[in-house]
Amino acid sequence: MNQPKVSIIMGSDSDLPVMQQAADILDQLEVHYELTIVSAHRTPERMFDFARMAHNRGIGVIIAGAGGAAHLPGMVASLSPLPVIGVPVKSSNSIDGWDSVLSILQMPGGVPVATVALNGAKNAGILAAQILGASDPEIRNRILKYKAALEESVLDKVRKLQDKQGR
Amino acid sequence: MNQPKVSIIMGSDSDLPVMQQAADILDQLEVHYELTIVSAHRTPERMFDFARMAHNRGIGVIIAGAGGAAHLPGMVASLSPLPVIGVPVKSSNSIDGWDSVLSILQMPGGVPVATVALNGAKNAGILAAQILGASDPEIRNRILKYKAALEESVLDKVRKLQDKQGR
Amino acid sequence: MNQPKVSIIMGSDSDLPVMQQAADILDQLEVHYELTIVSAHRTPERMFDFARMAHNRGIGVIIAGAGGAAHLPGMVASLSPLPVIGVPVKSSNSIDGWDSVLSILQMPGGVPVATVALNGAKNAGILAAQILGASDPEIRNRILKYKAALEESVLDKVRKLQDKQGR
Amino acid sequence: MNQPKVSIIMGSDSDLPVMQQAADILDQLEVHYELTIVSAHRTPERMFDFARMAHNRGIGVIIAGAGGAAHLPGMVASLSPLPVIGVPVKSSNSIDGWDSVLSILQMPGGVPVATVALNGAKNAGILAAQILGASDPEIRNRILKYKAALEESVLDKVRKLQDKQGR
Amino acid sequence: MNQPKVSIIMGSDSDLPVMQQAADILDQLEVHYELTIVSAHRTPERMFDFARMAHNRGIGVIIAGAGGAAHLPGMVASLSPLPVIGVPVKSSNSIDGWDSVLSILQMPGGVPVATVALNGAKNAGILAAQILGASDPEIRNRILKYKAALEESVLDKVRKLQDKQGR
Amino acid sequence: MNQPKVSIIMGSDSDLPVMQQAADILDQLEVHYELTIVSAHRTPERMFDFARMAHNRGIGVIIAGAGGAAHLPGMVASLSPLPVIGVPVKSSNSIDGWDSVLSILQMPGGVPVATVALNGAKNAGILAAQILGASDPEIRNRILKYKAALEESVLDKVRKLQDKQGR
Amino acid sequence: MNQPKVSIIMGSDSDLPVMQQAADILDQLEVHYELTIVSAHRTPERMFDFARMAHNRGIGVIIAGAGGAAHLPGMVASLSPLPVIGVPVKSSNSIDGWDSVLSILQMPGGVPVATVALNGAKNAGILAAQILGASDPEIRNRILKYKAALEESVLDKVRKLQDKQGR
Amino acid sequence: MNQPKVSIIMGSDSDLPVMQQAADILDQLEVHYELTIVSAHRTPERMFDFARMAHNRGIGVIIAGAGGAAHLPGMVASLSPLPVIGVPVKSSNSIDGWDSVLSILQMPGGVPVATVALNGAKNAGILAAQILGASDPEIRNRILKYKAALEESVLDKVRKLQDKQGR
Repeated sequence: MNQPKVSIIMGSDSDLPVMQQAADILDQLEVHYELTIVSAHRTPERMFDFARMAHNRGIGVIIAGAGGAAHLPGMVASLSPLPVIGVPVKSSNSIDGWDSVLSILQMPGGVPVATVALNGAKNAGILAAQILGASDPEIRNRILKYKAALEESVLDKVRKLQDKQGR
Repeated sequence: MNQPKVSIIMGSDSDLPVMQQAADILDQLEVHYELTIVSAHRTPERMFDFARMAHNRGIGVIIAGAGGAAHLPGMVASLSPLPVIGVPVKSSNSIDGWDSVLSILQMPGGVPVATVALNGAKNAGILAAQILGASDPEIRNRILKYKAALEESVLDKVRKLQDKQGR
Repeated sequence: MNQPKVSIIMGSDSDLPVMQQAADILDQLEVHYELTIVSAHRTPERMFDFARMAHNRGIGVIIAGAGGAAHLPGMVASLSPLPVIGVPVKSSNSIDGWDSVLSILQMPGGVPVATVALNGAKNAGILAAQILGASDPEIRNRILKYKAALEESVLDKVRKLQDKQGR
Repeated sequence: MNQPKVSIIMGSDSDLPVMQQAADILDQLEVHYELTIVSAHRTPERMFDFARMAHNRGIGVIIAGAGGAAHLPGMVASLSPLPVIGVPVKSSNSIDGWDSVLSILQMPGGVPVATVALNGAKNAGILAAQILGASDPEIRNRILKYKAALEESVLDKVRKLQDKQGR
Repeated sequence: MNQPKVSIIMGSDSDLPVMQQAADILDQLEVHYELTIVSAHRTPERMFDFARMAHNRGIGVIIAGAGGAAHLPGMVASLSPLPVIGVPVKSSNSIDGWDSVLSILQMPGGVPVATVALNGAKNAGILAAQILGASDPEIRNRILKYKAALEESVLDKVRKLQDKQGR
Repeated sequence: MNQPKVSIIMGSDSDLPVMQQAADILDQLEVHYELTIVSAHRTPERMFDFARMAHNRGIGVIIAGAGGAAHLPGMVASLSPLPVIGVPVKSSNSIDGWDSVLSILQMPGGVPVATVALNGAKNAGILAAQILGASDPEIRNRILKYKAALEESVLDKVRKLQDKQGR
Repeated sequence: MNQPKVSIIMGSDSDLPVMQQAADILDQLEVHYELTIVSAHRTPERMFDFARMAHNRGIGVIIAGAGGAAHLPGMVASLSPLPVIGVPVKSSNSIDGWDSVLSILQMPGGVPVATVALNGAKNAGILAAQILGASDPEIRNRILKYKAALEESVLDKVRKLQDKQGR
Repeated sequence: MNQPKVSIIMGSDSDLPVMQQAADILDQLEVHYELTIVSAHRTPERMFDFARMAHNRGIGVIIAGAGGAAHLPGMVASLSPLPVIGVPVKSSNSIDGWDSVLSILQMPGGVPVATVALNGAKNAGILAAQILGASDPEIRNRILKYKAALEESVLDKVRKLQDKQGR
């Protein structure tokens, strides 16, 4: 089995449909990851142990998703030297996502969280790959190919729209 | 020395001018308290130890103030069985206080924080006294007197305004 | 019949589906409560009498839920020496819940309301138990057990997710 | 002495600089008024008595100003059959005035408050005169003159600006 | 036919389901009204004529509802000496109602609009009756009866809830 | 004297410091303009006449600035076939500019206002020139030169910053 | 085939249902346009080429729609001397449309975008026609007729409502 | 001279006081960087060249700061395979920073920007070091030391506060 480089954690299993998108894009970019539940508020000791140890297990980047008063990304960032990517989740108890965004983004000086868009787990996965790609040319090449494919898929839609108009 | 019943903590010494108001009103209501700095993000282990042990030291209520992505009240509430009062502080790095309010108020089911108004440390002190007063008739009497004095001070202003108009 | 220690009130019967969650968790924590409708705007005299008398009937904590321009929690807090927990309800006439939150949270100095999350009636119930637990070791023990069960249920989900990934 | 037709009340003497503007414009429109402090949260009984009795004293309109979780206008509207004009005050403890606005404006069905702009006490005074003018042709005439003067003062500024450009 | 005392206007027929509630409560309070469409943006001349003439036709109060960049209430208030009640409508093109609320509420000094809650047309109707009741004891009596009925209907729900709990 | 092509209007002379920036950039781009005060709320008839006639006087674009419940740009757009550029002004009575922005931007279908940034009068002037430049190659050339100068001024700052770092 | 005068572009084909409304109204106003997909983030080079060349191809106005962190209108405005109309689209990944609005509206000095309402593509089309109408009397006449038809359709609804009430 | 690993860019020299904090912390963490001005809106071609080439010059992370409709971080992220850290700057033309935050954070799927807090340039520098530390044990050690020093400085303040209380 391959050693995971990215750890995807979330505060609740209700965040899984969103956070699975980080896993899917990492699969596509051939980056090994683990995915589990770590709740800052319901399993604080598990969170402590996880965050303190992750870099010793070979993890290079942590992706943490949470909603409402979302403390998981910031607390993990407080406990780990690794870059932590925060995914604000628009959960059912959130006020239109504003609480999720602000409680992840607005970290005090000294403890950054790399915040992505509301429900932006896919982008969290790409960002994790870009971070690993900073020292791994193979991953960076996959990023370059991914971006080229992205462009191509839009150009394809451009052509389809033109065909439709041409008729 | 008297055993403190209320513990007032804050994320940073820059929160002291706001949080001192909780101490002042507790002095006035003759409730013993302690006051110290506990940072969720900069001293996570100190926070853990503090929150896990507070109820064993005879503390009955915790008042926690923080600003921006304010995780201190919620993390302490996660670790302690005590009622935790959260004071959103409008710190210099806050977006008009919205981040402070939402990251304290919007706790998930199972882990409440009793949130007061932005910079409402005085009310946090009164609330702590009310909580202790639930089983301590002497403190409750002081609350009743405090409310009566509050009313009297407004009535005094009413009279002064009338005198001024009468002239 | 057992003397209720907590009084759960709400501004309208349309708030009942939310506020019932406070009752349910108090049942689970074996705390006696009463539940009724008290409207600040439609039955102001009933509200006055209720708030003035509650502490004389042995009530220790009041939970008040309301939506829109939600004045019930604050007015009851003005009239009673008891700790009042406010539940902002996202009612149909609310602007995404912001009005409910702000008109409960932003109380002036001297009259605190312990505000919980939007629709956070379950947390209001837990907070009420924590407040009573400040002087009642049995209730505090139930809180400690509740928190342990909360942790266990997350760990259970962690195992289920791992099993699913193992397959 | 003349019987006041409008009652201007405010939650705190710190609201006086704003609320005085209602008094000033009523002076200008020659409408008799009274002005005093009535706090919903600090003098609830005084508020009750005031609101229950105002229409029996010959008052025709109530103007109520308050800030933060501003309950005074709504509670008075709940207790009185008179039209109540609410002035959201941007007080020092307010979150940019949003709390003041929403807790006055968003009243439930059955209990309206005629809300004016943040700190809009001058407009509250004019509105009070318009309401009395609905059955008093003299006051309505003063309103018509006031509007004409308003127009004239703008036209005067138009001419001054043109003169300045002409030079 | 009876002379209407209240004129209910709206910017678009899509506002009718909301604005009809003003008509319904005025029916209940036995106040004569008219109801029509006047668009500030699509029929500016009709709006001008309407607003300039309303008080000459015996109208005492205008209720104006609109959504989005809602200019109808404010423009009518600019052109008429009558009290104008503004109803912010949460129309399909509105940003959660904030645009409707702010563009009606935040009128400049000199030109008040009596703003009610988002979609609060029922309260606009009651407020119109209260304004007429300032000089018409019969209408005021109906308001007093309406408030008493409101209270009674809540007390009825209190009893039903108690019965349900008693079972 | 040259016939003005652009008409700059504002709701109040207090908007002049902001709106003057539109005039200044039009001076720089050698586009003739007029500048005056037209208040939707205080001089509605003047506004009507202005808006109805502007295109007959050879005006090609209208720039209208206003703050708070800002109805001037939308009402002028309702009355004139010309493109109307709206400048939301952060006036003293505005709630952080949100009311100004939303009451100008959120126009209903059929009546557009070309809205620029809060206090963005300079951009309103440039946009007016771009609109005239759609059929006037000389003005378009000035726009191209302006953009080139803008670029050059940034490149100049780049060089200064490099020099400073080089020392 | 006729030379298009207006270019309608959008960041994604998911914006088409909104942006098609710009095309429809331009059809109605008999203004020639082209419609295609240009993504600032996924096809940056295509965007560069498009924006640099549009005015050389005879395009007079660009309409650009995008959602979320909507950079397309502003980037095109940076690269083209043409007036650019921005349509904030309330896409699925948007926070209630606020991100779309603010990232299009709040352009820095020197680079205006003529922003219309959220999802206001119809108004973008009308505005484009008004801009072309500044130098094309035929198009201006169609605008005048369109506005007259708009007024007539409201007056028609007025009559229908009156008929309905008459029954 | 040492090859820079981090490139700090900003949209305007007015952003320098904020963005300098990223440079300062990188100095402290002994990470080589370059710092310059690149404007998306005023020097789009310079931005294109910069973003396309940065990874070929040995840059591993880009930090981009901008305010208002802040397009620089997202456009650079669109053009470069490198991880891009976005710093929302609360510039003078910003609406309380909301526009800066939302136009950087809310990037569409496929093009992430690692967003930090409003004016959070210091955290952007730390995050850049953490990203480089993912493959450079020496930098990671400096991060661990930095975090330890952060903790120690808080503990020092704790002691000072205790001494002050002891007196």
